[in-house]
Amino acid sequence: MSRPVRIAVVGHAFMGAAHIHAWRTAPRFFDLPRHPEVAVLVGRDEARTRAAADRLGIAEIETDWRAAVAREDVDVVDICTPGNTHAAIAEAALAAGKHVLCEKPLANSVAEAESMAAAAEEAAARGVRTFCGFSYRRTPALTLARTLVEDGRLGEIRHVRAQYLQDWLSDADAPLNWRLDRETAGSGALGDIGAHSVDAAQWVLGDSIAGVSALLHTFVPTRPVSGDAQGLGGSGDASGERGPVTVDDAAAFTARFAGGAVGVFEATRYALGRRNANRLEINGSRGSLAFDFERMNELEFFDGDDPTAEQGFRTIHVTDADHPYAGNWWPAGHGLGYGDLFVHQVADVVAALDGGEPVRPDFREALGVQRVLHAVETSAADASRFTPVAGVGPDSSGEEAEG
Amino acid sequence: MSRPVRIAVVGHAFMGAAHIHAWRTAPRFFDLPRHPEVAVLVGRDEARTRAAADRLGIAEIETDWRAAVAREDVDVVDICTPGNTHAAIAEAALAAGKHVLCEKPLANSVAEAESMAAAAEEAAARGVRTFCGFSYRRTPALTLARTLVEDGRLGEIRHVRAQYLQDWLSDADAPLNWRLDRETAGSGALGDIGAHSVDAAQWVLGDSIAGVSALLHTFVPTRPVSGDAQGLGGSGDASGERGPVTVDDAAAFTARFAGGAVGVFEATRYALGRRNANRLEINGSRGSLAFDFERMNELEFFDGDDPTAEQGFRTIHVTDADHPYAGNWWPAGHGLGYGDLFVHQVADVVAALDGGEPVRPDFREALGVQRVLHAVETSAADASRFTPVAGVGPDSSGEEAEG
Amino acid sequence: MSRPVRIAVVGHAFMGAAHIHAWRTAPRFFDLPRHPEVAVLVGRDEARTRAAADRLGIAEIETDWRAAVAREDVDVVDICTPGNTHAAIAEAALAAGKHVLCEKPLANSVAEAESMAAAAEEAAARGVRTFCGFSYRRTPALTLARTLVEDGRLGEIRHVRAQYLQDWLSDADAPLNWRLDRETAGSGALGDIGAHSVDAAQWVLGDSIAGVSALLHTFVPTRPVSGDAQGLGGSGDASGERGPVTVDDAAAFTARFAGGAVGVFEATRYALGRRNANRLEINGSRGSLAFDFERMNELEFFDGDDPTAEQGFRTIHVTDADHPYAGNWWPAGHGLGYGDLFVHQVADVVAALDGGEPVRPDFREALGVQRVLHAVETSAADASRFTPVAGVGPDSSGEEAEG
Amino acid sequence: MSRPVRIAVVGHAFMGAAHIHAWRTAPRFFDLPRHPEVAVLVGRDEARTRAAADRLGIAEIETDWRAAVAREDVDVVDICTPGNTHAAIAEAALAAGKHVLCEKPLANSVAEAESMAAAAEEAAARGVRTFCGFSYRRTPALTLARTLVEDGRLGEIRHVRAQYLQDWLSDADAPLNWRLDRETAGSGALGDIGAHSVDAAQWVLGDSIAGVSALLHTFVPTRPVSGDAQGLGGSGDASGERGPVTVDDAAAFTARFAGGAVGVFEATRYALGRRNANRLEINGSRGSLAFDFERMNELEFFDGDDPTAEQGFRTIHVTDADHPYAGNWWPAGHGLGYGDLFVHQVADVVAALDGGEPVRPDFREALGVQRVLHAVETSAADASRFTPVAGVGPDSSGEEAEG
Repeated sequence: MSRPVRIAVVGHAFMGAAHIHAWRTAPRFFDLPRHPEVAVLVGRDEARTRAAADRLGIAEIETDWRAAVAREDVDVVDICTPGNTHAAIAEAALAAGKHVLCEKPLANSVAEAESMAAAAEEAAARGVRTFCGFSYRRTPALTLARTLVEDGRLGEIRHVRAQYLQDWLSDADAPLNWRLDRETAGSGALGDIGAHSVDAAQWVLGDSIAGVSALLHTFVPTRPVSGDAQGLGGSGDASGERGPVTVDDAAAFTARFAGGAVGVFEATRYALGRRNANRLEINGSRGSLAFDFERMNELEFFDGDDPTAEQGFRTIHVTDADHPYAGNWWPAGHGLGYGDLFVHQVADVVAALDGGEPVRPDFREALGVQRVLHAVETSAADASRFTPVAGVGPDSSGEEAEG
Repeated sequence: MSRPVRIAVVGHAFMGAAHIHAWRTAPRFFDLPRHPEVAVLVGRDEARTRAAADRLGIAEIETDWRAAVAREDVDVVDICTPGNTHAAIAEAALAAGKHVLCEKPLANSVAEAESMAAAAEEAAARGVRTFCGFSYRRTPALTLARTLVEDGRLGEIRHVRAQYLQDWLSDADAPLNWRLDRETAGSGALGDIGAHSVDAAQWVLGDSIAGVSALLHTFVPTRPVSGDAQGLGGSGDASGERGPVTVDDAAAFTARFAGGAVGVFEATRYALGRRNANRLEINGSRGSLAFDFERMNELEFFDGDDPTAEQGFRTIHVTDADHPYAGNWWPAGHGLGYGDLFVHQVADVVAALDGGEPVRPDFREALGVQRVLHAVETSAADASRFTPVAGVGPDSSGEEAEG
Repeated sequence: MSRPVRIAVVGHAFMGAAHIHAWRTAPRFFDLPRHPEVAVLVGRDEARTRAAADRLGIAEIETDWRAAVAREDVDVVDICTPGNTHAAIAEAALAAGKHVLCEKPLANSVAEAESMAAAAEEAAARGVRTFCGFSYRRTPALTLARTLVEDGRLGEIRHVRAQYLQDWLSDADAPLNWRLDRETAGSGALGDIGAHSVDAAQWVLGDSIAGVSALLHTFVPTRPVSGDAQGLGGSGDASGERGPVTVDDAAAFTARFAGGAVGVFEATRYALGRRNANRLEINGSRGSLAFDFERMNELEFFDGDDPTAEQGFRTIHVTDADHPYAGNWWPAGHGLGYGDLFVHQVADVVAALDGGEPVRPDFREALGVQRVLHAVETSAADASRFTPVAGVGPDSSGEEAEG
Repeated sequence: MSRPVRIAVVGHAFMGAAHIHAWRTAPRFFDLPRHPEVAVLVGRDEARTRAAADRLGIAEIETDWRAAVAREDVDVVDICTPGNTHAAIAEAALAAGKHVLCEKPLANSVAEAESMAAAAEEAAARGVRTFCGFSYRRTPALTLARTLVEDGRLGEIRHVRAQYLQDWLSDADAPLNWRLDRETAGSGALGDIGAHSVDAAQWVLGDSIAGVSALLHTFVPTRPVSGDAQGLGGSGDASGERGPVTVDDAAAFTARFAGGAVGVFEATRYALGRRNANRLEINGSRGSLAFDFERMNELEFFDGDDPTAEQGFRTIHVTDADHPYAGNWWPAGHGLGYGDLFVHQVADVVAALDGGEPVRPDFREALGVQRVLHAVETSAADASRFTPVAGVGPDSSGEEAEG
């Protein structure tokens, strides 16, 4: 039997736990060339990291990511920390010859992302792979959407309509946390969830956003400082002290794609009642698609080639044996959940090692997303003026570079 | 019994027929102070007008609107012609002391709309009423939405998300018609359907759009010239001649409302599969609303005051006896149709005559919509730069002026 | 121009008003061979009938239906009264050579229905038409459903799932009215709404129910007697007197169709929250259909011939120009309402006169529904034992008799 | 740390794999009193069992369940084999003092189920627990439904409407497999999926079915015999040989609950397009509920106490921190999948050991389901005559016996 793939997971909050669950589960449902094993969990605080490791079933820990990255017995470094730490860890790992799976957004600035993409390109020449965790691509429904577009079933694409709506900040007295701090998070709704919309739209279309006209807004400029700055649940402490929110609460922008489509994007955490409505609708000359992650097992497909009197959006329950990923799980109609996307992600990563099909999005493609986010911020700061996205053009499209 | 209200209807295409049906039906279902009767149908071509009058059951016709407007036996002039004719007819009617119901958009330019609003104001002093036909306001679900917002059930409004999606131009070989001609129609999707979204959003919120950042796009720049330039159904004639489309195919813009809400608007006739998806979603600090005209009898309402574990968008079937307009029709659950909105509209108009509650939107309020459309076109022509809407401010809000 | 069709409408409550609206509206939207006019309104109480006639715009009234039926100037008698009056009026009208449109259910007993069907057959030989008002057939979505089944798009039919759910009796203190009285109404939910399900299922399938196993139940055996026994809104008068409910509150039955399909039917007025959910789902070997009148403009169609990965129920918005009836109204996507079904019904009736295509369902076909209702009552009274429907067999199927 | 719970899993097909995944995952997301570990996998064929154990990550195997049941190091026996083997394994395990988790239906006959329930009662006196795997109860939405009913939010229950619709037998040439064989499977759609509906309805209502009137039907009496009799995918072998289907393809029955509600149940594998539509709707005097497993993260709740004009079915996305089970997983709006139900199930089982809250349904409660299935078969064989369910009455209700 082939030797296992050994992983160092950096970070053990929500996202770290999701990844570890995925590494453990993938080989039970997917036929992988090598068996993945989480070798070590990395966290700054020894006691908390040890507790997490025990809960998550991992034997070894490190408190210094540099040590983890240098370990002989590590093949993949899996980065699940906030965006301000990504560049340093990823570049050290690549330098040490480790494959890297890095959470999104790739970095907190275009400069960092460019540096990471350059390091990735250099490492790729040595057979080292990079991957950015835009996990929603692993939704079977969105993968099917991509296939339908690729197969020409939508014809020429005219409209993209992407909304990522959450509501966990609707209460103006919900406390501050790191996601509301520009230094740590880079941006607010834009980078946290809008980035997913940008990535999904570009990927499903096989096209790049060429320019944007944007608006950013912060509805609640200060929030209670809680004792535990990570917390969200409470309403702040008794002191009544409030600290500044330094990121956007909501982002909205129109976009033009290189291929001619018009896009409308919106990301917010103030859409009361929309818990996690990651929506994408695409209209083409031959067909249309609509997706909402709150119904993640469904894809709406309108086939303009149907006889007129029988046309309608059909709700495809994307759980059949011949749907992407779905055949590895349950019988038709028995839906998947959010956690299963991470299983798909690591299964794809493992399959890409040792000369497998390159895994997407790599750092270069994720840099493309970062550049869109940057153009959004630039436009918003310039009275919403239309702002081109750097690097998108006949010679520089990420899509073409990969093809 | 009181004397009847006698109406001159100008125009006998789709919209004229809808209005005439409404005038005939309203007194059968609504308890009106006076009985409406269509006294005369006005059209340029005598033979066609006569044929329409026969089909629609109207005894008299006129081929010159000036003659109709001047008739002693006419109380209301109902204008159902393209936008380039509105100002002349309406102003003549007002000068003659007739109440005016004018189809939307009020005019093809702000200048015309301002002139009409001024004439309306002057006429109002003489007890003459004006009304602009934003008929979607008469949807019971949207009227209920307005009430919920007014009652504070949504709290502070943060987001407005308005889409008006149609698809009848998806086929690039559908022929030219007057709606694609700037001279006649004023604009394309923007004025035809986007105007409805602007009006509905401002009305339901009781707020005004303060500025916009916009994009207009024409996907198909030329289309087949058909023998019958009014036609849409065919694919052009054999000659293969194509003429220019001089209006927008699609409009998209972000908006800031005077009260602080952020809006995202989109109007298009290229959203394949969306036959008439006039959608409005509003998120506030206490609640949210969602509406789609393709399900016009339903309103989605999320009440943030519900216990957390029981929160969800509830689908209100707006057909109960205590819902707006609905009690005049059928038992609960027996929905209304598009044509019924016009019945509500004329019932409201008749109720407003003779000192009744002023009817909304009057010309002044419709001018407010026109100014938003104008700001959209200005921004789109200026690289999407944020553009304030004229007349919106502490001293000039249409909403305040009425209150 | 041809002479008009002159109608006597018997009854002026909810259903009479709906019919009169339809007679008035049909010639404005449908191209009819003759122009219908309501010549006379019939009601027992002179004052109330006169008031209704004024409101509904009808010049003449009669207080004795016998006089109306005998009038020279009447071509069609339109019966909108409770079921216990149908047979006498219809048979007199047929004897007088009048066409008859009779509300459903055809009668309160099979014996009456058989007598009416015999009279209809005799009259048919003289060119006189009969028609029973199962108005839901006139829903464009259900007509499309019928066509799809007829065209074999569903293959062999296996399952029929019909529910007619209302909730207006959920409150145990809603007052008694005539629909709760066996003498007047014949039965309860079974005949009032279950009859629609039986008719729709048999018609869409082109098949007949061969036998049933049924359960009838009355949840609330007594209800307050109100001063106005017609009323529903209040909670009874102060006396606290309650009278007996003598009909079923709910009916549920399994069924076997002559062609081999299995059916499950349910009708109730206690399904809280379901205002008028008249639902029909059909599963065949090649396709499936689902309909819910609360979304009357939509039909769900699953085409088993689609590629597996693209299969799904498609929501057809049945408002296109090439959908049944829809082309006579508004542009695509602009839905119809409940009242419009009656317009379709009378348009079909007018088209059937003077040698037009026979109109369905005629009395004979409506008798078939009555026999199913009778079998349901028989089975329910016999411990739910399977009970064959009279007249269904190789030689007696209503369907075959018409073919 | 407490000693682990060691499990023997009997069977390694679809259901065995789901259980093993659950045992492995539960301690990572749920705070359990003891850590579960699958100690041994049991299968008849050594090579296949070994291969499955390797894939599923289990070190030890047994080929004789008697040996597994007797092992000192086993605490729980988890039975994932067809119904004809349940009684022998479960009773031996109980006799050996092992807790037992047994897949549903509990047995293939009432006699076996009664014997198992008696053994369970005897074992319970020794502190040994039994549990039957009606996994759908572990859906957060259904658990919430149960709570709402229990809290009286629906008032008096009038209607239950349960459908379990699948479509994997729609193709008349799909091959025979063990689920179509009465000897192995006990019954067809009735026991396989109808049993889930019966269990869910009785559990959510906290009531028992008192009697039924039923119809069973087999649409396709013979099917191709494939070389691999377990297979479903192909269309049989070249020989063209067909074997008999000895179970029901579809079951439909009306029911009366002890508490007065009326039920309508349907189970089929021929509802083309319904992949796994396990639906439950309940109407009470104060509220209603609707659930469909194809949208397993949603519960529809109609609250009759809402103001009339605001009433509607609300779609609760059952993924909030304060929803059952959901708080252990992801942030709100990030839905769960089918596989996660088994995680909930084993977490509940582990919590019930060592004196924890008794786990439901135990064998006695599962026997109640078996008796309903038996009454259905009895009624269907007796012309659908109403047939009481054994053991349901003032002194024998399963619900009361537990309370």
